[in-house]
Amino acid sequence: MRPSGRAPDEMRAITIETGYTKHAEGSCLISFGETRVLCTASVEERIPPWLRGKGEGWVTGEYSMLPRATHTRGQREAAKGKQSGRTQEIQRLIGRSLRAVVDHKKLGERQITLDCDVIQADGGTRTASISGAWVALRLAVDGLMKSGDITQDPITAKVAAVSCGVYQGTPVLDLDYPEDSNADADANFVLIEGGKIAEAQATAEGAPYDEEAFLRLLRLAQMGCAQIFKAQDEATRK
Amino acid sequence: MRPSGRAPDEMRAITIETGYTKHAEGSCLISFGETRVLCTASVEERIPPWLRGKGEGWVTGEYSMLPRATHTRGQREAAKGKQSGRTQEIQRLIGRSLRAVVDHKKLGERQITLDCDVIQADGGTRTASISGAWVALRLAVDGLMKSGDITQDPITAKVAAVSCGVYQGTPVLDLDYPEDSNADADANFVLIEGGKIAEAQATAEGAPYDEEAFLRLLRLAQMGCAQIFKAQDEATRK
Amino acid sequence: MRPSGRAPDEMRAITIETGYTKHAEGSCLISFGETRVLCTASVEERIPPWLRGKGEGWVTGEYSMLPRATHTRGQREAAKGKQSGRTQEIQRLIGRSLRAVVDHKKLGERQITLDCDVIQADGGTRTASISGAWVALRLAVDGLMKSGDITQDPITAKVAAVSCGVYQGTPVLDLDYPEDSNADADANFVLIEGGKIAEAQATAEGAPYDEEAFLRLLRLAQMGCAQIFKAQDEATRK
Amino acid sequence: MRPSGRAPDEMRAITIETGYTKHAEGSCLISFGETRVLCTASVEERIPPWLRGKGEGWVTGEYSMLPRATHTRGQREAAKGKQSGRTQEIQRLIGRSLRAVVDHKKLGERQITLDCDVIQADGGTRTASISGAWVALRLAVDGLMKSGDITQDPITAKVAAVSCGVYQGTPVLDLDYPEDSNADADANFVLIEGGKIAEAQATAEGAPYDEEAFLRLLRLAQMGCAQIFKAQDEATRK
Amino acid sequence: MRPSGRAPDEMRAITIETGYTKHAEGSCLISFGETRVLCTASVEERIPPWLRGKGEGWVTGEYSMLPRATHTRGQREAAKGKQSGRTQEIQRLIGRSLRAVVDHKKLGERQITLDCDVIQADGGTRTASISGAWVALRLAVDGLMKSGDITQDPITAKVAAVSCGVYQGTPVLDLDYPEDSNADADANFVLIEGGKIAEAQATAEGAPYDEEAFLRLLRLAQMGCAQIFKAQDEATRK
Amino acid sequence: MRPSGRAPDEMRAITIETGYTKHAEGSCLISFGETRVLCTASVEERIPPWLRGKGEGWVTGEYSMLPRATHTRGQREAAKGKQSGRTQEIQRLIGRSLRAVVDHKKLGERQITLDCDVIQADGGTRTASISGAWVALRLAVDGLMKSGDITQDPITAKVAAVSCGVYQGTPVLDLDYPEDSNADADANFVLIEGGKIAEAQATAEGAPYDEEAFLRLLRLAQMGCAQIFKAQDEATRK
Repeated sequence: MRPSGRAPDEMRAITIETGYTKHAEGSCLISFGETRVLCTASVEERIPPWLRGKGEGWVTGEYSMLPRATHTRGQREAAKGKQSGRTQEIQRLIGRSLRAVVDHKKLGERQITLDCDVIQADGGTRTASISGAWVALRLAVDGLMKSGDITQDPITAKVAAVSCGVYQGTPVLDLDYPEDSNADADANFVLIEGGKIAEAQATAEGAPYDEEAFLRLLRLAQMGCAQIFKAQDEATRK
Repeated sequence: MRPSGRAPDEMRAITIETGYTKHAEGSCLISFGETRVLCTASVEERIPPWLRGKGEGWVTGEYSMLPRATHTRGQREAAKGKQSGRTQEIQRLIGRSLRAVVDHKKLGERQITLDCDVIQADGGTRTASISGAWVALRLAVDGLMKSGDITQDPITAKVAAVSCGVYQGTPVLDLDYPEDSNADADANFVLIEGGKIAEAQATAEGAPYDEEAFLRLLRLAQMGCAQIFKAQDEATRK
Repeated sequence: MRPSGRAPDEMRAITIETGYTKHAEGSCLISFGETRVLCTASVEERIPPWLRGKGEGWVTGEYSMLPRATHTRGQREAAKGKQSGRTQEIQRLIGRSLRAVVDHKKLGERQITLDCDVIQADGGTRTASISGAWVALRLAVDGLMKSGDITQDPITAKVAAVSCGVYQGTPVLDLDYPEDSNADADANFVLIEGGKIAEAQATAEGAPYDEEAFLRLLRLAQMGCAQIFKAQDEATRK
Repeated sequence: MRPSGRAPDEMRAITIETGYTKHAEGSCLISFGETRVLCTASVEERIPPWLRGKGEGWVTGEYSMLPRATHTRGQREAAKGKQSGRTQEIQRLIGRSLRAVVDHKKLGERQITLDCDVIQADGGTRTASISGAWVALRLAVDGLMKSGDITQDPITAKVAAVSCGVYQGTPVLDLDYPEDSNADADANFVLIEGGKIAEAQATAEGAPYDEEAFLRLLRLAQMGCAQIFKAQDEATRK
Repeated sequence: MRPSGRAPDEMRAITIETGYTKHAEGSCLISFGETRVLCTASVEERIPPWLRGKGEGWVTGEYSMLPRATHTRGQREAAKGKQSGRTQEIQRLIGRSLRAVVDHKKLGERQITLDCDVIQADGGTRTASISGAWVALRLAVDGLMKSGDITQDPITAKVAAVSCGVYQGTPVLDLDYPEDSNADADANFVLIEGGKIAEAQATAEGAPYDEEAFLRLLRLAQMGCAQIFKAQDEATRK
Repeated sequence: MRPSGRAPDEMRAITIETGYTKHAEGSCLISFGETRVLCTASVEERIPPWLRGKGEGWVTGEYSMLPRATHTRGQREAAKGKQSGRTQEIQRLIGRSLRAVVDHKKLGERQITLDCDVIQADGGTRTASISGAWVALRLAVDGLMKSGDITQDPITAKVAAVSCGVYQGTPVLDLDYPEDSNADADANFVLIEGGKIAEAQATAEGAPYDEEAFLRLLRLAQMGCAQIFKAQDEATRK
């Protein structure tokens, strides 16, 4: 029995509010239940030094939690003077996931930064971030195509992410905080619409897992991402 | 003529949405027009080292801009590894302003941290922060009184802040970004309900100003804060 | 009764010893009573990146306390690895104050850095810094004009600063440390010769103040700055 | 055809030289072909603050590359003043992997730090680190059991790690640098002797992969780890 | 021929102005010609953690250059966020040199910090720092003995330092900046009154030197320190 | 009697294993008894900014201890976020020592970085580092001459270093850790083959020393370096 009463394969409600901030070229507030992340896409007509002159663009991600997004207040990373290992791991994951669906040649020599700032945390902040970042990216690229800065769509597919885990012996979809903090195993899947995998990470927190459990988690992730792809579609069609 | 078409003594619309996040003991999203700041109050049963054993509490403030709160993306302070002078100046001001209306003895040996995170910036982020922080503080203290942790109200009055400035020769109230970036003089007033001043800061950006101009700015601030006090009142009565 | 026995409107002795160090293009040791600050002006033929190609110069300030300038030793900011919020606030104020009396076009594409290092502290270090920095700047600009590097004087007026405060209910001029650490309100005024205000900051430390008190503090500051302008004049005429 | 001429399911030569340094409680130099990592286990009779009083121990990992372990010299992280995101990600993985096979109650209130310093890099440094860290840990725990500090063996199983990837369309085992830098997908598996998985991470670098490819990579990893378990066994039996 | 016209064994004028700042327990402004260093001794009734409970005190040194002590302005170490290797090397030398003449048992469980801040630099700042730090220490200890906090003098001897070098083939005493920046070899000697050596450091900057040259430099240092001991004596007798 | 049973003028066994790592242009693992340092020379076709356009090269050194090179584990400097004063002092010494035997004109506009990483420490790590760095440099330069990048040998002589000290009243050669941590005086000599001195540093740790003791230490260092020169010769002839 899940603390929330959800069925093992039941996602939390997904909502995506586009245009949440006015300055960003693309933005949305994405919610997976009580987890809320503000995702913005910022287009800059400059490129990291190592890419200069190659005629290619770059997509990168940044991630942060507001200090009181969580149950107890966390110290600001800006005040501590450095980003935690967890933060850096997540922002590297966000960047890799989005780059998996971007044709950098078609993007042209510009950089798009996807900022994912967690307003409220209840498990699954990194997967909500990736899923929302795609929406922000889509909106920003739509703008570049409308203005004629880009002529061919550089986005090759939708990408979405969801967490799964083994909670009290049962594989479940879309862990919330009470589940996440007690799971035996914890997995994050980044899937591409059409069936391919961009990234799979499955960690044994309590007891190690076997191949069969892994495959069940992957199956759940496929079900979850299907719903996220649908929500992304509706949000960006508007 | 102001870019927004407002009269010189006209505030932007003030909205205060309380309970914006579920974990914080008090929270609100405050808007001064397009400027939006999330203010949370976090209560912790610990005290800075220099206050230990004095039977007093402490109120402090922190401030940050999300990277794409502004027209062009700013680098994250956490990534840079330090907070800018501007950030530190503002968070010191927030802390001082709120402490001006708190009786630290009545608060007891606990700390309340007021986090002000700017979601969208259009001028006046520090004054919206102070005004919203008071609401978050009020809600957190209400909770402490309801639970019996505090028996006497430590908040002595409302505090609010607003910016004023000399724009194209005319003193105006509540500068938005287009005004703020072109003002001859720029002032921030932190006022206490009842007529007293907690803090006044007036800086000549372009041309120096005289005593008369300063007094006109103060008069505008008093008008603006009267409206903020009313909005604070409505928000915390609910 | 002031701890020093001074009248409410009585400044401490002001002395300005020019040419205190031999390498700087302009320098002085300024004293407000026991507060002693070494101010140097360094001319560099380079400009911050954002000003390049505009044909304008830049004036900036830096501030530091020697570790044992104070009653008890403070840790070196270089050893701590960062400058405090207070230090950054003060050096931003010094820079703004001096820029208020400089025509950047006439200065040409060069930067002048005003370093204010507090040798001994007894209240009013930031105001002594600003007042002494003007002398160092004046001397450095005199050198640039003598050498022909500058043809039109870029300094438009004298600028000076003084602190005032409400001490035991009475507004007093030029707070020393015993007053500063017990004042109800504490103000710093940066005034321009001729009557204009470059910056006014008044903070309620204990009890909030009202408009009338503010105006009395401004009046005291005008009296104090008149004396500083005279001392600056004598120091730079020599 | 692999650049090294190896068969797709062929590991590089594994060597483990135990007792490589004299001060550490356990140590080895592990080689996966030309990749060489010095792994040391340091036992300290102290525990992180959040574990105090729980009667449990802690196992943690740290990772670094010597500046010229690689083809071109990298700047020292100590000189840059911070550890990269990659370094932090790897050291978190090392710690988690080893903790998956340790019973913290049986370890008692002590910490074992596993330092993995890459002497020479040719692909697979993180997987060699984990595999060698287990040997260092085993030796250190053997010492604690011999001295009577620990009475029941806290190590529950062997753990080993190996990288696999899709190189030019073919899933291959134990990527070396020329393969790693050109792989379409890159996976790291941390396996526990007996068939369970501690951690699986598979990233699409070039083209996304499907479930079948993932399973083939896992099969290869199982083959590779079987060889590493054997080498660990021989090294710790001596 | 030396640029200054001095004879090879001629020191620059030494002046020591005691009581230069009012807060420090001991202080002086020491000059070796145009090199001027403010040395303060701060007594604190606390001890570094590793000395606690041993009944011993500690003497340590810190060193800094004001940004415009030199010909061209140097960036503040506090702004850069770290102390240079040179600064750290010098402050370690100052601490070791003074500890060589202090009986830590007689000092009791207190720490004396010797801050050496270079007001103006013209070669020999570290040697002037050590020589002046001894005076500040002597004055601080005199105060502790007068107040009865210490009953037996913990200072066992005078210590002084001077630089020497091989300039255009000739060993010379007390290098000034034009010599220092062109010397073939550069040595710093820290000598104890009575003939012993606390520290000798001789570096070949241009051409390596031989034993005979080293001994001539030592002879010059002995002559120079004799004069410094005399100046220290006069300064602390007053 | 020395703890190791060595005669006062007896070095520990010196071994130099060249080609220890495959990527570096020159490398060796040098041992002075149980002290083991990995020295690599990295050639880069770039030059520090201040040398650009002068037609000269640069040689620099870096130094680090692996965390468990010592009896008890030390925190990583990369994790602390800064290099200690000791580390910086040593790496400055390594660079100066090697530059003393390099003709920078003949080296051409390239930089050689000598990384000295201590694998195991038992006293004398800095002197082993310098002695091994020369071997790595020699090998790297041999490669540059063989490839024709350099036509005239820029290395003017061998350089080696050894520590000496006064241990229980007796001057002894090549201190190991038990001696080093209890010596009255501790000296490091960097000598150039042929009899000249590049650097001499002698520090009184316990009791100050006199000129005669210093000369005896120098004599021991000359004996020790003769043996190191021989080992360097054999290692680089192979």
